[in-house]
Amino acid sequence: MPPKSNNDHLEPLAQSPKTRLRRSPTRAVFDRQALYQIFDEAMIAHVGFVQDQQSFVIPMLVWRWDNRLFIHGSNGSRMIKALCDGPSICITATLLDGMVLAKSAFHHSSNYRSAMVMGTCKQIEDACEAEQALEVFMELIAPGRWTHLRPPTKSEMAATTILAIDIEEASVKVRTGGPNEDEADLNWPVWTGELQLRQRVTATVRDTHSVGDMQDYQSAWGERWQV
Amino acid sequence: MPPKSNNDHLEPLAQSPKTRLRRSPTRAVFDRQALYQIFDEAMIAHVGFVQDQQSFVIPMLVWRWDNRLFIHGSNGSRMIKALCDGPSICITATLLDGMVLAKSAFHHSSNYRSAMVMGTCKQIEDACEAEQALEVFMELIAPGRWTHLRPPTKSEMAATTILAIDIEEASVKVRTGGPNEDEADLNWPVWTGELQLRQRVTATVRDTHSVGDMQDYQSAWGERWQV
Repeated sequence: MPPKSNNDHLEPLAQSPKTRLRRSPTRAVFDRQALYQIFDEAMIAHVGFVQDQQSFVIPMLVWRWDNRLFIHGSNGSRMIKALCDGPSICITATLLDGMVLAKSAFHHSSNYRSAMVMGTCKQIEDACEAEQALEVFMELIAPGRWTHLRPPTKSEMAATTILAIDIEEASVKVRTGGPNEDEADLNWPVWTGELQLRQRVTATVRDTHSVGDMQDYQSAWGERWQV
Repeated sequence: MPPKSNNDHLEPLAQSPKTRLRRSPTRAVFDRQALYQIFDEAMIAHVGFVQDQQSFVIPMLVWRWDNRLFIHGSNGSRMIKALCDGPSICITATLLDGMVLAKSAFHHSSNYRSAMVMGTCKQIEDACEAEQALEVFMELIAPGRWTHLRPPTKSEMAATTILAIDIEEASVKVRTGGPNEDEADLNWPVWTGELQLRQRVTATVRDTHSVGDMQDYQSAWGERWQV
């Protein structure tokens, strides 16, 4: 099993001209641990890259280990090929935590946690390191599952590209709580507050070829596990 | 109240060189209604644009009306200003519907519905049209709420930019169901199947200044409404 991620003594996130928040700067968060939690919880992120002046935004499974994000895909994928070339990309993960209903349309808002990382991808070339990165991913989704699986073959590993991106240029933006109202609106006669949203595990669906009982994966899913 | 969105006789989505799916093309969906449902359900999307060769991916509240997507923001927002200049942007909404656990690491996957729209933004200049667009947005989140709110002021409307993008160049990709296994792995002794994920309304949090009872907004939230 891979070693545990080391989250002690984390450096706060530094701002760069590209990542400095200008709009609602009070929502900026510089805690690196907060960024880690957003990516860990989101599991998917949206990866942005440029080709022929056109912006592409593609959803990808993303996992974090120590201070790096990982994505993977088939060697043949147009996107993976594009990212291997080392353009500066942007990976954003967002959790929509609620809708905020105010007295006026203008002050309606949403609660969210969003993390953005910019940088270039580095391909994991070493076969052992690549396999360990996948094992880490599996451990995050389904702790202990890796050892129960049919092991990866050389040709499967050879067909898969794993890319890593260091978390250096990054920002986090968070909104929580109820509406911010105009003083003059406070007595306006309407219900105000938050409709809280959370992602939940709503069912486990056994496959036809499943054998045996499901392992205990609940620890990886925290409060999301509701089945 | 704004007229109902007209979803009859929808043209299927056409492919362009930019939107044609090359990876897992069997997951492509050309039903325009499917695209509508993804944006309607996601409520947030990730907007990608390019500045100085750098890709930016920003989460935004996005709503759909007829065959257009809308976003809004403060006139002062760097992003809104950038989008008003008419660069070709990419808006992607993704719903992560589940994790798919297979016999081998290689065949693990995720279930998802993702929709991508490319194009340029057009600013809604007409004041009536702008206000109607916001009313439509409110109606989608909280049906009937608009008429209960303190009405928008001229200065609020003047401070807000609303952008629309036609749904012309677009693609939809969907994965559902259990794992696709190698024939040789079918008897491998491990649990396989899907961990289904759904977003839920898990609480309504009343604000200190709230007055009266909450209206019935459940219809807008469908099976997500669980409180």
